[in-house]
Amino acid sequence: MAVVVRNTRRTDMAIVDGLAELGVATVHEAQGRKGLLAPYLRPIYRPVKIAGNALTCEVAPGDNWMIHVAIEQAYPGDILVVTPTSPCEDGYFGDLLATSAMARGIRGLVIDAGVRDIATLTEMGFPVWSKSVSAQGTVKETLGNVQTSVVCAGAHIKPGDVIVADDDGVCVVSHLDAARVLDAARKREANEEEKRRSYALGELSLDSNDMRPRLAEKGLIYIAASDE
Amino acid sequence: MAVVVRNTRRTDMAIVDGLAELGVATVHEAQGRKGLLAPYLRPIYRPVKIAGNALTCEVAPGDNWMIHVAIEQAYPGDILVVTPTSPCEDGYFGDLLATSAMARGIRGLVIDAGVRDIATLTEMGFPVWSKSVSAQGTVKETLGNVQTSVVCAGAHIKPGDVIVADDDGVCVVSHLDAARVLDAARKREANEEEKRRSYALGELSLDSNDMRPRLAEKGLIYIAASDE
Amino acid sequence: MAVVVRNTRRTDMAIVDGLAELGVATVHEAQGRKGLLAPYLRPIYRPVKIAGNALTCEVAPGDNWMIHVAIEQAYPGDILVVTPTSPCEDGYFGDLLATSAMARGIRGLVIDAGVRDIATLTEMGFPVWSKSVSAQGTVKETLGNVQTSVVCAGAHIKPGDVIVADDDGVCVVSHLDAARVLDAARKREANEEEKRRSYALGELSLDSNDMRPRLAEKGLIYIAASDE
Amino acid sequence: MAVVVRNTRRTDMAIVDGLAELGVATVHEAQGRKGLLAPYLRPIYRPVKIAGNALTCEVAPGDNWMIHVAIEQAYPGDILVVTPTSPCEDGYFGDLLATSAMARGIRGLVIDAGVRDIATLTEMGFPVWSKSVSAQGTVKETLGNVQTSVVCAGAHIKPGDVIVADDDGVCVVSHLDAARVLDAARKREANEEEKRRSYALGELSLDSNDMRPRLAEKGLIYIAASDE
Amino acid sequence: MAVVVRNTRRTDMAIVDGLAELGVATVHEAQGRKGLLAPYLRPIYRPVKIAGNALTCEVAPGDNWMIHVAIEQAYPGDILVVTPTSPCEDGYFGDLLATSAMARGIRGLVIDAGVRDIATLTEMGFPVWSKSVSAQGTVKETLGNVQTSVVCAGAHIKPGDVIVADDDGVCVVSHLDAARVLDAARKREANEEEKRRSYALGELSLDSNDMRPRLAEKGLIYIAASDE
Amino acid sequence: MAVVVRNTRRTDMAIVDGLAELGVATVHEAQGRKGLLAPYLRPIYRPVKIAGNALTCEVAPGDNWMIHVAIEQAYPGDILVVTPTSPCEDGYFGDLLATSAMARGIRGLVIDAGVRDIATLTEMGFPVWSKSVSAQGTVKETLGNVQTSVVCAGAHIKPGDVIVADDDGVCVVSHLDAARVLDAARKREANEEEKRRSYALGELSLDSNDMRPRLAEKGLIYIAASDE
Repeated sequence: MAVVVRNTRRTDMAIVDGLAELGVATVHEAQGRKGLLAPYLRPIYRPVKIAGNALTCEVAPGDNWMIHVAIEQAYPGDILVVTPTSPCEDGYFGDLLATSAMARGIRGLVIDAGVRDIATLTEMGFPVWSKSVSAQGTVKETLGNVQTSVVCAGAHIKPGDVIVADDDGVCVVSHLDAARVLDAARKREANEEEKRRSYALGELSLDSNDMRPRLAEKGLIYIAASDE
Repeated sequence: MAVVVRNTRRTDMAIVDGLAELGVATVHEAQGRKGLLAPYLRPIYRPVKIAGNALTCEVAPGDNWMIHVAIEQAYPGDILVVTPTSPCEDGYFGDLLATSAMARGIRGLVIDAGVRDIATLTEMGFPVWSKSVSAQGTVKETLGNVQTSVVCAGAHIKPGDVIVADDDGVCVVSHLDAARVLDAARKREANEEEKRRSYALGELSLDSNDMRPRLAEKGLIYIAASDE
Repeated sequence: MAVVVRNTRRTDMAIVDGLAELGVATVHEAQGRKGLLAPYLRPIYRPVKIAGNALTCEVAPGDNWMIHVAIEQAYPGDILVVTPTSPCEDGYFGDLLATSAMARGIRGLVIDAGVRDIATLTEMGFPVWSKSVSAQGTVKETLGNVQTSVVCAGAHIKPGDVIVADDDGVCVVSHLDAARVLDAARKREANEEEKRRSYALGELSLDSNDMRPRLAEKGLIYIAASDE
Repeated sequence: MAVVVRNTRRTDMAIVDGLAELGVATVHEAQGRKGLLAPYLRPIYRPVKIAGNALTCEVAPGDNWMIHVAIEQAYPGDILVVTPTSPCEDGYFGDLLATSAMARGIRGLVIDAGVRDIATLTEMGFPVWSKSVSAQGTVKETLGNVQTSVVCAGAHIKPGDVIVADDDGVCVVSHLDAARVLDAARKREANEEEKRRSYALGELSLDSNDMRPRLAEKGLIYIAASDE
Repeated sequence: MAVVVRNTRRTDMAIVDGLAELGVATVHEAQGRKGLLAPYLRPIYRPVKIAGNALTCEVAPGDNWMIHVAIEQAYPGDILVVTPTSPCEDGYFGDLLATSAMARGIRGLVIDAGVRDIATLTEMGFPVWSKSVSAQGTVKETLGNVQTSVVCAGAHIKPGDVIVADDDGVCVVSHLDAARVLDAARKREANEEEKRRSYALGELSLDSNDMRPRLAEKGLIYIAASDE
Repeated sequence: MAVVVRNTRRTDMAIVDGLAELGVATVHEAQGRKGLLAPYLRPIYRPVKIAGNALTCEVAPGDNWMIHVAIEQAYPGDILVVTPTSPCEDGYFGDLLATSAMARGIRGLVIDAGVRDIATLTEMGFPVWSKSVSAQGTVKETLGNVQTSVVCAGAHIKPGDVIVADDDGVCVVSHLDAARVLDAARKREANEEEKRRSYALGELSLDSNDMRPRLAEKGLIYIAASDE
């Protein structure tokens, strides 16, 4: 038995787009260093920076049938999140599915498996974060769930959670935390801007963050090369 | 003992060039989803799309001697296919060998091992699909076979089989099947062009491929989010 | 207990810059095929080609505190070499640390772990060779050594050894050997230039390097395809 | 900030012990082929077969502090489930922690990281499923959560879910499903016992499961070797 | 379309059993260091040492249907060789299939994928060499070929080739070469027995194989520690 | 050019044997958590626990010639440490070399590559820690150094350093530190014995190590499950 859950909640697009601007590293820090998908997910082209609502899709190994089912459930601004029920590197997704997904307003694909037609996807400007690039085709025989909670690349993702993805990788922000994380991330970025200016002038983080006393307390010793 | 087989058959270049245009994913599907080399073979630059006759070369781990031997056996339009007798990631091939290979009409290299000088190879426009990039040098001590059947990155390749390679990876088409596969691939591509147009207009594959009855028969259920 | 060794020796910048020009593959060959770091270290952008004095830094897994300490010890022309005490792929280094490092004259980073903010690092032109790209943040709790001998990506590196890094990967040249290796590498390059010219004209390495007698002696046999 | 949640629910030990008897493969099938942890988790000795309530513990890379905290929260019959916030293979757990865990009634450890002292743990009869065996020690500097939901080796685990573990690997059964899954698994096993008897007598699954018509319908063709 | 080829040739069981006695390393050497399957194939228990005729079976990822088909084609003395059409680590084979396979005279399983129920398989004495151990179940939806040539774990295997498998791994001997390889392997073993006796008495291979002159000619130098 | 350094220093066998008793985890901790070889080195049989003086040997990929050379340099109580100049998983070492090594007093092998004949090696009681098990044979064509400093599995090892190896893996102790480390390790073990007794009685490390105040200070919060 498999289910498709229709009309699940989405996160407000103003929040989604705010998170997109800030990028993965800042958002991930702002929510307490959690929610990162495994770094083996890599973008097919760079630079790239998007966010969207998670449209989740479970697939059998070597079987992309449910992606066809999932696309119908898309709202504009969704990011398709595909996870196989056991590890697989086949090319589940290519330019035909991308054409269909773009027509439905899907902003990109995060897949814990393989993708193909990446030359065309790059030309089309349809971003994909995948575990592999593989031309290996798939069948359409086995059902899976659409818009249920999944684990993708080591992260727990619920429909309507915010997916943030850029050159550094992919992060998920829970629907419930999204507004709060956006605030925290904006504050973090403002703070970083100040640091960037002082570091560019040669100031050291040892001083601006007052690290020296704690380093000494922990036992750090400075010696001259000749004392070795 | 090791042998070099001279003047092996080649596939007709009209067929080879036809397959190059169609690309790996289409050709692989058209021949029944077989012949793909392992997706860990990645191109050193993108975009790239070529085809050629397989010029096969077995090498010992850490020893590139037989590549020197193989280059002499090239016909214009060949692609050099190098496979070590046990896994190795050393840099077997660099800009000097590429210069020699290009002078002999070789179109590119597929190697289940490493390559080096990739900045220069990229400038030269000599494409390589490899398992790794490594500056690690090799010796010239141990013989291997040239132009015999090999297993390269998990695929069985015979001299004169067609190698098709692009951004998605590498595929082999048997010499005997090449003409038939070219026909099938062209038909597939024409068919895909139609689908692309309808998907771009928002039509769903669920409808155009009449998937709904079979999904229902297998037990797919649609529920509303509030029913969860 | 952890130590920071101050004012360690550096290799003369004229030698360092000479090695940068020659690149990793040539330098590695010229010093007898040793000193290569593991090829899983890949540059975040290409093309790129630098050399510098090793500024070494040991870090705990998931802890980038000592990088802050190491930056203060930089001399202009250094390359920061970071190695975790056990394998880790977290994003130890981002745009803030890069800003600070550039302000101190550091030319790039070699890290046997992860890096983040690679879009910004690419814009800044700060090159990094890393094991992974990951937004995963780190803590500042545990000490490590700065400017002591380390093993990084399988190579033994001492402070002030020369790090050469380009599209092919990363190589270390011992401080003591640097001048001699520069000489040998220049000779090798001159010799390669000659070979490149003759290969471009179609001459075979089998002939120019007189390989045929030794191939025969080892037992290489040439047969015609019809004899198979 | 980090939390320890006290006195979380447990699954009834009669259900837990029933699932232990049936083993991972049967339980996994009975709940619809879900809940399996990644197969890189391997037992340190064999044969072994246990079940228990999940006592979850998040740890920083290279830091086992929270395991000390988690042990205090154990109920007899728990299995400790440890997951690092980013991938790590250090030896988080050895014979001292095992002594403490056994004294508190913990039945075993599932850890998406490394373990050490495996000779002693084997003698003690304290089973561990781990990603690696490593003597690499850890620090005690960074907090994490105890008894909150975690993703461990690709599976979502909540405190009090049932962990079933044997020679084949590790499976999680949701607290809510445990009674139902136990029933289904017992039925499955009874059914398998019948099949085992008939197969031992040479009957084929092709016949007992009536597969031949569907194979023919899908297009399976039998040919004689001489027709090839 | 998929085919089952019936009544393919087998290698004579006297030859097969002779090869079993000699083991993988000796057989592999005797046939010129070829035919080895990738070393990630590991036995589920040790010690173990068998040989048999290859009964080949291609399966889709996550789909074990064709194994049921293949078992019917077995002759006593066969070893089942299963290879997925794209990489997969699922548990394709467990104790029920093993019961059926043993009843049909199959001696063991070589599978470039996963196996489960290994505790029971070990008790039954049914040996398996696999890429992984995983309880992950499979479906029965997609056809594949039985008794056609396959590439399994990097080696090309034809029906009726001899599979030799022991603690060291798995090797294939072509049907055509089997008698000749058995002779060569027996000679090799006899020769090794002599060497073993002399080495046990402290004789060095440097002397018994007269390696010293060639080492010197290649440039090997002996120095005293104090000369370093 | 390659060198064999004769009559290098060894560490006193009383110290070596003392370290053997204590095992890898204890010795590694006692010397400040350094010196561990990568945990992918695994013993071919368990349980096992040895120590010896490092007899180092560099080999080319797929070439075991220098192992023959190294054996002549053995002193009783040595452990052979073999490292390839680039990664290789071939079976460099089998029962013949083990016979010769045992006759010369070598206690075991640590190899960052493959080993074969493991059934016989297990019967002989000759322990090996290796990266892989592989029957793949090697050639004898290329020189390497014997008894020079090497990097093996990520650790820097000098001739005469002490190698400690057991079920948990392999650790190196510098010749210069060996006596001091032995003392520290013995103290550590005595201390652990006390802890073991108190933990077995149910005492918590939180109390015996007074961790509670520091946990609270870092911000650890305890909540009841109903507060979640």
